[in-house]
Amino acid sequence: MPILYLIPTILAENTADQVLSPQIREVISQTTVFFVENVRTARRFISSLKTGVVIDDLLFYDLDKDTPEAETKQQLAILRQQNRDAGVLSEAGCPGVADPGAVAVRLAHQTGWQVRPLVGPSSILLALMASGMSGQSFAFHGYLSIEKPARLQEIKQLEMDARKRQQTQIFMETPYRNNHLLADILTACNPETRLCIACNLTAKDELVRTLSIREWKAQTPDLHKKPSLFLLL
Amino acid sequence: MPILYLIPTILAENTADQVLSPQIREVISQTTVFFVENVRTARRFISSLKTGVVIDDLLFYDLDKDTPEAETKQQLAILRQQNRDAGVLSEAGCPGVADPGAVAVRLAHQTGWQVRPLVGPSSILLALMASGMSGQSFAFHGYLSIEKPARLQEIKQLEMDARKRQQTQIFMETPYRNNHLLADILTACNPETRLCIACNLTAKDELVRTLSIREWKAQTPDLHKKPSLFLLL
Repeated sequence: MPILYLIPTILAENTADQVLSPQIREVISQTTVFFVENVRTARRFISSLKTGVVIDDLLFYDLDKDTPEAETKQQLAILRQQNRDAGVLSEAGCPGVADPGAVAVRLAHQTGWQVRPLVGPSSILLALMASGMSGQSFAFHGYLSIEKPARLQEIKQLEMDARKRQQTQIFMETPYRNNHLLADILTACNPETRLCIACNLTAKDELVRTLSIREWKAQTPDLHKKPSLFLLL
Repeated sequence: MPILYLIPTILAENTADQVLSPQIREVISQTTVFFVENVRTARRFISSLKTGVVIDDLLFYDLDKDTPEAETKQQLAILRQQNRDAGVLSEAGCPGVADPGAVAVRLAHQTGWQVRPLVGPSSILLALMASGMSGQSFAFHGYLSIEKPARLQEIKQLEMDARKRQQTQIFMETPYRNNHLLADILTACNPETRLCIACNLTAKDELVRTLSIREWKAQTPDLHKKPSLFLLL
């Protein structure tokens, strides 16, 4: 039975030497087929690890949000027949979590692959660890609505769920819209609600702070274009 | 401002060389105060890394579910005054996620520490990656009720939430009760509901499979005393 490796990548530039588990380099040096969101960055990432593999000998299959499921299914079926291992490589963080990798994994389970997740950085998990909020009960919601009224409504609902279930609510935004989202959180939430902002995780200027909405209003940070996660409780 | 490092540990025996990020060894070799659930296993873990630190020079503070919050608060206050970094070390996996570490992190935020989460293994995240279920929306619930009727009710509620919200529902059980939990899941859920069982993660005999309840009924595995996570969608 071939193995589908789920291979995390770095979150911030020049951090591979600090954050990648040894099993990632080992698997990458032995795998020749990769499902990737972006071939160019995947090639660059594999090169940067300096494992000695010849990049031009590798086979890359596209796996982004527009890839037809049937295409991935067929590629997995052929590899399965050849009993050939493959990897799913994320653009940032862990494949299958808030990225298109989950589709390949689902299809792999249906077609008799062994699935092996490798240890690596996940901004969601790092943010949760560092928030000091409940790690016994938490929910991740990805991106909220782009429309402002709907987004304000969703934030209020998340705050209500956080309080009622004592469940940490985690969400994110495209980095260039972070300041808008933060403004909406400060508008929609109760002054006593706690908000954690986890920004530029694993980078030199990483910042993780948990304060009340009241306190954030008095010292609102500029998050423009800085990859961030938001946690409410 | 002193730094509170959140230091993950291994999930399975003899896996440190594969799963620990380089930053973990680096931080452990430079830190002299640790908040730990169990001093004996923490000392053994640090020794096993062979970083050259003298274990008897280290200071260990208890941080388990029975530790009074005031005690941890005072320890953090004194260290803060001395501007002395410290680490929170988990028993297995990542501190602050399904363990008592979150309390120390919350207090650290309140008393002006910088909090730095390190990259390492988390069974919850590895299970989610490998499940092939939605990583865009998921919730972790920790342990379900011990009482059978309440537990059956909770499983039905989780199945309903999974379907309604298209949200992966993740939960776990004390390993010696895994078979009881699995039996209850197979009883309570719809035959078409998908269940992922992720067992002995990162170990040689790791197993991750996603099948329908109907399929699991035909091939029920023995999970007794095997650390496992359960995911429904």
